[in-house]
Order: sequence, then C-alpha cells, then structure tokens
Amino acid sequence: MKTLELELGERSYPIHIGAGLLTRAELIVPHLIGERFAIISNETVAPLYLQVCETTLAEYQPVVIVLPDGEQYKTLDVLDKVFTTLLTERCDRRTTLLALGGGVIGDMTGFAAACYLRGVPFIQLPTTLLAQVDSSVGGKTGVNHRLGKNMIGAFYQPRCVVIDTDTLDTLPDRELSAGLAEVIKYGLLHDASFFEWLESNVDKLLERDKEALSSAILRSCEIKAAIVAADEREAGLRALLNLGHTFGHAIEAAMGYGTWLHGEAVAAGIMIAADLSHRFGWLQAEELARIETVLARAGLPVRAPAAMTPERFMAFMSLDKKVQSGRLRLVLLERIGAAVVSDDIDQTPLTETLEQCRSQQ
Amino acid sequence: MKTLELELGERSYPIHIGAGLLTRAELIVPHLIGERFAIISNETVAPLYLQVCETTLAEYQPVVIVLPDGEQYKTLDVLDKVFTTLLTERCDRRTTLLALGGGVIGDMTGFAAACYLRGVPFIQLPTTLLAQVDSSVGGKTGVNHRLGKNMIGAFYQPRCVVIDTDTLDTLPDRELSAGLAEVIKYGLLHDASFFEWLESNVDKLLERDKEALSSAILRSCEIKAAIVAADEREAGLRALLNLGHTFGHAIEAAMGYGTWLHGEAVAAGIMIAADLSHRFGWLQAEELARIETVLARAGLPVRAPAAMTPERFMAFMSLDKKVQSGRLRLVLLERIGAAVVSDDIDQTPLTETLEQCRSQQ
Repeated sequence: MKTLELELGERSYPIHIGAGLLTRAELIVPHLIGERFAIISNETVAPLYLQVCETTLAEYQPVVIVLPDGEQYKTLDVLDKVFTTLLTERCDRRTTLLALGGGVIGDMTGFAAACYLRGVPFIQLPTTLLAQVDSSVGGKTGVNHRLGKNMIGAFYQPRCVVIDTDTLDTLPDRELSAGLAEVIKYGLLHDASFFEWLESNVDKLLERDKEALSSAILRSCEIKAAIVAADEREAGLRALLNLGHTFGHAIEAAMGYGTWLHGEAVAAGIMIAADLSHRFGWLQAEELARIETVLARAGLPVRAPAAMTPERFMAFMSLDKKVQSGRLRLVLLERIGAAVVSDDIDQTPLTETLEQCRSQQ
Repeated sequence: MKTLELELGERSYPIHIGAGLLTRAELIVPHLIGERFAIISNETVAPLYLQVCETTLAEYQPVVIVLPDGEQYKTLDVLDKVFTTLLTERCDRRTTLLALGGGVIGDMTGFAAACYLRGVPFIQLPTTLLAQVDSSVGGKTGVNHRLGKNMIGAFYQPRCVVIDTDTLDTLPDRELSAGLAEVIKYGLLHDASFFEWLESNVDKLLERDKEALSSAILRSCEIKAAIVAADEREAGLRALLNLGHTFGHAIEAAMGYGTWLHGEAVAAGIMIAADLSHRFGWLQAEELARIETVLARAGLPVRAPAAMTPERFMAFMSLDKKVQSGRLRLVLLERIGAAVVSDDIDQTPLTETLEQCRSQQ
C-alpha cells in the first residue's frame, strides 16, 4: 500500500492506494466520529463490493443506500431520496457517509455529506479508474442540472480516500478507457515524462497490468493532490485540471447525461483543446499527432459527435463555470506537459477547431 | 445607522441597522465581486421593496427572481427553479445574490449561493423582524425536508447584512409578534437585563415605536454576533440559540410548514423548555410566569397545538439535528438570562411537560 497526504491544513487527508484495501477496517474506522456509517453505492457496484464493505464494517451495521447507475441520475431529485433515507434511518450529525462507486456516486455522496444536517463527514471508496485518479480526490462534489454539468455543488473534502485497486478487475473495458482519459490529461497538463511513460505503457494499462495501473494511479493522485493543495477552491492553478472539460461537459449535457461517458467526452475535449492550441501556434503538429495517437490507442474517441455543431458547443459552453463576465476561459496547451488558462479566444479559430474536431459521420 | 461587525476572520462581515438603508448603494456595491447582482424575493415583499432595490442598483440591471411566499416553499424543488433561472440568465461565479425578504428567502438565497457553481457571494436584506434579529445573521442556510425543518443546508456566511428598519412599517402584526419571539429568546438565554427591558417595552414594540424597535434589533444582533463569532459551526455555545427550537421545529413540520409561523412555534417551544426547566428545579415558578406573560403580551401562543401529543412531538424530535447517538439534546434555562444544553432528559418529566404545555381546545 502507498499513502499520499493531501495537504490542506486542518482539512488534510490521506489517500491510500493498494490491493484489497476494502477489507482493511483500520483505514476507515479511525475516520468515524460517531457510531454510524451509511454506505451509498449503485446497482452495478453494490452486487460486487457491498458485501466486502459490510463485512469489514460489520460491527457498525452500516445503513445502505443503493442508487440507480449512471450520470443521468446525478440530480437533485435523486439526492433528495438519499436525504429521505438518511432521515428515516435516524442518521445524525455524527454519521459518516461512505461513497462506494465511481465518479457519480462520489460526487453525489460528497454533496449529500456537505448538505445533510449542514454537514457530516464522508469517505471516498472509488471503484472506477476515473474516480480513483480524479474525482475522488480534491473535494469537488455536486450534481448536474439539465442546463449544465456539475452546476450545483460544494467544495467539501473527504476524511480519507481508500483506493482498492482490486476493484478494477471487474471494470468494463469502456470504463477503463474512460479513466485513462484523465490519466493522460495529467501528463499533458503537468508532466511530459509521465506522458511519455503513458505512450510506452498504454497497452499494459489496457491489459490491466497491476503494476502499471498502480503506477498510473499513484502518479495521477500525486499530481492532483499537489495542485489541489496549492489552490483548493480553483482561484487559479486548479483550473488547469479542467483541460478538455469545458468541451467535454458540453458534449455530456448536449448528448444527454450518460450517453457519452465523462472520460470519453473529456478525450474528445482534449483533442479540441489541443487542436486550438496548435492553431494558436503553441502546440506543434507532431505533438498534436502524439496526443491523438495515445488517446486512440487507449480506446477513446478523438472526435466530438457529429451532432455537436460549433453553435451547439457555444450554447452549452456559455454556461461553463469558468466563464467570467461573458468571456469564455479555456485551458490550452503550450506544449505537452504545460497548460495555461486563456480568456483571449477569437471566435474564428475556435469555430474552425470545433468544425475540424467533430465526427463527419 | 449603527454598524456591528461579525468577527469570523477572513469571513467577517458588517451588519448595518438603520432607516432607509435599501436606498444606500454604498452599503451594497462594495461587496460586488463581478458585475452582476441577482435579487431573490417573494410575491409579498417584491411589490413593496423590489423597486427601491432596483433603483438603488439601477446601473447593474439586476436579475430578479420572485418566489412564492411561505415556509412551505422552502424546498429543494423551489431551489432548483432558482438555479434554472440563474443559469438561463447566464449568471456566472462572480454574480452576487441578494436576499430581499424574510427568513425563508434569506435561508434559501444563502443556500443557493452556497451551491450555485459551488459557491457565489450573497448579501442579506432582511425585511421581517424575525429575519432582522435572527436568521439573516450567522450563516445558517438551507431548506426544509418533509421529515424535518432545515435538514438540508450549509454554513455559508453573507458578505454583509443590511437591515432597513423602514421595512417593518409594512410588516403584518402577526409577523411582528413572530419576530419578537426570537428577541425575547435572546434575553432569556443570555441577558436578563435585556429581558427586563423587553418586559417594560413590549407595548412600545407592538406599537412599532421606531426607537424601541431599533434598540431591540441592535441588542439581538449584538448577542447573536457574539455567539456566532465564538462558535460558527455550532460545536457548543451556538446550540443555545436553539432555545425553544427543537419543540418549535416539531410543531412546524408536524402541522405542515406555513401553518404556524416559525416565531409562533418558537414561542410555544420556549414555554415548553421553560416548563421542563422548572420541573428540573432550575427555573422558579415566578420566572416561568414572567416568561409566559411577556410572550402572551407580545401576541404569541404559549401553548402547542392540541394535535401535538407527546408521541407526535417525540416522533419529530428524534430527527432533530442536535440528537447524538439517539439521545435528545435540549436547550433549557437555569434561570432567566442563562441557558444550558442537556442530554440528560428523563422521558417522564418530558412527557408531563409536553402534556401540560399543549392547548386543551
């Protein structure tokens, strides 16, 4: 087991990474502040990993809440049902919520914890690669609104993150690829040598080589933890983690949540950001080609859906959380390993890029 | 104009109290961080005070959202409609929300500000006595759940509180009395001489004597600000502000939100807490009589509704936010001017008190 610390003063917490960690009560129980746990999971993950969690925490007889699976259920309505169960089960302020699942479960459980009785503790137990490398770390929680992704939420940090890498054994191939989109993102925005390592190891990762996956998760969490520690509430640096996300969120919202996986939309979004960066004279053609190659080899889409016309993109992107005073702010690449936020975006190259980067089928 | 400061480090903010303050742009505009305001009000208050606010902020062309009036609309559903309008109007992270109304508008606007795009600034412009002396100060925000009052929310502080005492001119008598319940509460829990002043001045307050009302608001805000500064997130001391509220919330939820005004339910709740305190040998019979007299003279109910049997109270109170590990925790009075939290509550005297303090009609 490897352990990182996310340094946030009194809100600091450990990130544990290793095989079989869901059986390790000693990683979870010290973060209990009262006597009760409530596990929140979904219909796909619960049959696989709920029992091991219940066994690990048997003496606490956790409350269990199982939600439907999918981004389309990440809503205020479903959250209200979580509150109803917590209230009916008499969960008090010292109940610790456990998020057992992927990014949707983690985001919703975190937001439920932020709001229930004005705040209860929570712990992340991510079971998808995407949640393990990205969404479980850093305290961004929330739900979607039909007008935009993650529009309602809170910055609310977990008490710890327990990443059991064994849970990847049951992850569908499509979800594994989706997680790799965020892994590749870290190389692109922060660490050129990690990007090169990914170019050399993408086949191993797809074959679920345990050592390669553990290394990728560890390095991703290191980068994310360092950036979040420096800028918890996204006043500056943290915005770089949104590379590809402004475009990706538009795809997810416009196509209907759950149609494209978040990681798939981010992959297409990264290609759009890279193409625009190339048009601005920053990213070289050879770098653009390398990015497309590694995303494609990871099994990810490198074009937006044909239905995403530039007009459709612009309509959704005007609602992005990074918009300030009507100006779009995008994360672009100066080179592989270095990202910047720019709000000086001419419409003409942006339209050309959006046209260029959508599927012609 | 009098100004208090609520001291909370980097989250400190001023509380301005005076006549005509809604026309004073210089109190509001310095707290704008971007270029836009959104005013959230209700169908009762908007016809009275929206225009003056819009005139004060004319150069900013504020977005306006008018909600239905009443505690029964303080829900996640109505909140979602607020988010829809904010998104449709392209309000970004630097939009400042203004809460123009009573406690329901203040609580909902504050919670909307806490969650919208993971947090935007907000300002309280309370227009009821209850909101001016209590709910606009201290950062408790949220919505009700059908199973309990204020169950979903956040601690989220405003950038400032602007109390225009002229708005009390249009306040219905019943709402004025409801606000006095919270004013009397401050005397009871913290300041015996203020309680005595209230005994002498309750008629003036009911006649809307400007000087008396201003004094009562100022002293109430001073007490609340001092307590919140010492214990922002209710780890201890702040719980004393809930005197009468555990019982009051049960009445509000059980009778249907909006049937009893919050202040009315709190008044009946204070009498229950006082009666129980007397049974415990703390409060003297003569003090109990003085409390009942001042509440009744303020036009407030001093008995719970007949429908609130002890069983019904217990069912709702078991969901109270102060419950810990199944134990009820109540705010009781040692004497007039001194409150304590107790979790050592025998059922027998509690049942006797609940029976004693409900209306026999």
